[in-house]
Amino acid sequence: MKFLHTGDWHIGKKLHGYDLLEEQQAAFEQMLRIAQEQEVDAIVIAGDLYDRSVPATEAVEIFQQMVIDMNLLHKFPVFAISGNHDSPIRLETGQPWMEATDFYLHTRIDQSIQPIEFNGIQFFLLPYFEPVQARLFFQDEEIKTVEEAMKRIIEEMKQYFKPGSRQILVAHFFVAGSEKSESETKLTVGGLDLVPLSLLKDFDYVALGHLHSKNALQTGNARYSGSLLKYSLAERDQTKGVWIVSVDQNGSSQEFYPIDPIRDVIQLEESFETLMSPSFYHQVEREDYIGILLTNQEVIPNVMNQLRSIYPNIIHLERANGPIKLAGAQFSKQGVEDLAPEQLFRKYFTATTGSILSQNQENWLQAGLTSTTTEQK
Amino acid sequence: MKFLHTGDWHIGKKLHGYDLLEEQQAAFEQMLRIAQEQEVDAIVIAGDLYDRSVPATEAVEIFQQMVIDMNLLHKFPVFAISGNHDSPIRLETGQPWMEATDFYLHTRIDQSIQPIEFNGIQFFLLPYFEPVQARLFFQDEEIKTVEEAMKRIIEEMKQYFKPGSRQILVAHFFVAGSEKSESETKLTVGGLDLVPLSLLKDFDYVALGHLHSKNALQTGNARYSGSLLKYSLAERDQTKGVWIVSVDQNGSSQEFYPIDPIRDVIQLEESFETLMSPSFYHQVEREDYIGILLTNQEVIPNVMNQLRSIYPNIIHLERANGPIKLAGAQFSKQGVEDLAPEQLFRKYFTATTGSILSQNQENWLQAGLTSTTTEQK
Repeated sequence: MKFLHTGDWHIGKKLHGYDLLEEQQAAFEQMLRIAQEQEVDAIVIAGDLYDRSVPATEAVEIFQQMVIDMNLLHKFPVFAISGNHDSPIRLETGQPWMEATDFYLHTRIDQSIQPIEFNGIQFFLLPYFEPVQARLFFQDEEIKTVEEAMKRIIEEMKQYFKPGSRQILVAHFFVAGSEKSESETKLTVGGLDLVPLSLLKDFDYVALGHLHSKNALQTGNARYSGSLLKYSLAERDQTKGVWIVSVDQNGSSQEFYPIDPIRDVIQLEESFETLMSPSFYHQVEREDYIGILLTNQEVIPNVMNQLRSIYPNIIHLERANGPIKLAGAQFSKQGVEDLAPEQLFRKYFTATTGSILSQNQENWLQAGLTSTTTEQK
Repeated sequence: MKFLHTGDWHIGKKLHGYDLLEEQQAAFEQMLRIAQEQEVDAIVIAGDLYDRSVPATEAVEIFQQMVIDMNLLHKFPVFAISGNHDSPIRLETGQPWMEATDFYLHTRIDQSIQPIEFNGIQFFLLPYFEPVQARLFFQDEEIKTVEEAMKRIIEEMKQYFKPGSRQILVAHFFVAGSEKSESETKLTVGGLDLVPLSLLKDFDYVALGHLHSKNALQTGNARYSGSLLKYSLAERDQTKGVWIVSVDQNGSSQEFYPIDPIRDVIQLEESFETLMSPSFYHQVEREDYIGILLTNQEVIPNVMNQLRSIYPNIIHLERANGPIKLAGAQFSKQGVEDLAPEQLFRKYFTATTGSILSQNQENWLQAGLTSTTTEQK
């Protein structure tokens, strides 16, 4: 039996203001092609289907079509859970009907205890949850952490383990020892959300979501699928894709299949002159989402607009060697309290643009200051 | 063949800030009981299922359970459309799966042209639409009004009319000659949204939503179901409920079945003394949503709080005979520009409370004015 393990789709996510729906659609289609070529028996999605609890209409529309494509058109059984970015209630709309075509999407702890039996495999679909939800479900005030909750949940699940069957857990949490990257900074810190890998040992495979790198966890029987796309500059060196997991009487094994995005997320550390030179930028995928580390030390007027004329999708711009150093006119806050408004403005203008005011600009400054001072009276 | 015709549920609607989910749930249960007792073959819902395009989570939860109750637990086929308050995209989530259990919810014009055949009846489910959507659908720039769109839509529908079958149209618009009430003031004015009754003559029954009174239209083969509950004070005298529609070879007939709300919407026109007297308020359902027309002429200090101590759900308070008339100190705007701040305040205080400032209040006024004037400097 083979299944495809994916997760952290974050449909509707924007990358520094850029809409990713087109990239998400294309990545989804590649995923579907891999599922067909590998002739998998099911698709597992480990949470964070949407990026927000109330996704935009466009995100709802595209995600619904993906579900129709997977399950109704291509007839793949789907085993999915909600993640911390999803609204359980909104996500489960229509769910009772969808089980008729083997589309299972669990959003509550109580749904996770009993497995879905499929081709000799028991799928336990455990959505993201907060400790308080486990406390309420077990009516046990002692449960304060995800680890404590997981001990109880797995105990309950094991009541349903069938000898001769394989057991797969689909879950969305942070396994101790995994590596986080920038995209996951919203995760709880302080350890209350940590689940030790040892707790998961009784499953043949644990299909995880939450962390965005497929390499976040590389030992044992558990893997993160990683996200569908690179969702931050910090993820630029991660290979995105899906696991094809094979399960037989001896346990499980997995192989990674990469997904190529329409537009990659990359970082360029170069001088302005290099970035603007055709011999350089003809070598670069200029439509990529680009973070730029500028090696120049001096002020460059109108730098962002100049760069955007070549690289339309800049998501970050920073100086490689710290703040701009100016030859003569470095801006310091020292003494600014003693400057007259026009002196302060001239100093600021020169510090940020590297030029001095033209005669026209001087006139506008005086006119502006006069009108401001007049209105105050 | 019999079906129940309801509409304008507006799940999640608040009445002057009061949450109506409990009332909506209770009314839904009555509706379901009527459907069972009358042994109808289907339930028709003529749009505005939710009150907003993005309903609150609580509204989504309760509505999803209603759908499960109707269609999965009680096995009623459901024929529904979206109304102007619904988001078509959000509402259609899961829809392709729900048709397997005869739950049909149409949200787009293109779905409405072909009927759903059911027990010898053809159901045409036409959601609320704007003229621009019909323009796009028919690729015809000439379509400017709902009437023009409806002519084209009905022409198309008639291609599918089967001799020997009955034809039912479910729609959500404003039929010319219907009576509006206050709740529907958001409707387009100016006539662009009017559909003449004569256009609908080829259907055996037209199950309408949009207007909240079942009596809005009382001639011909079309009826508004009216809303599930009274959704404004202006609807206080309307009887809410559902139509049970019988269809046979001779056409259709309908009978109205009322629904009793947990809390009614009523208006009381009384003096303050009457309203506060036990002999009066013991005769009144004090938990009702109450609009009060106060017949008193004089100022009553703290009037709303006093009334709320008896009537907890006041949704409106107004003087029956226009603004308060004061014995000596009526407030007029004349000459206020010439008053010193403390004089102006004294005049306003007396006009609204009927009393003059006590010595303490005078002290507070002076202290307040001093501090305000000081800060301005």
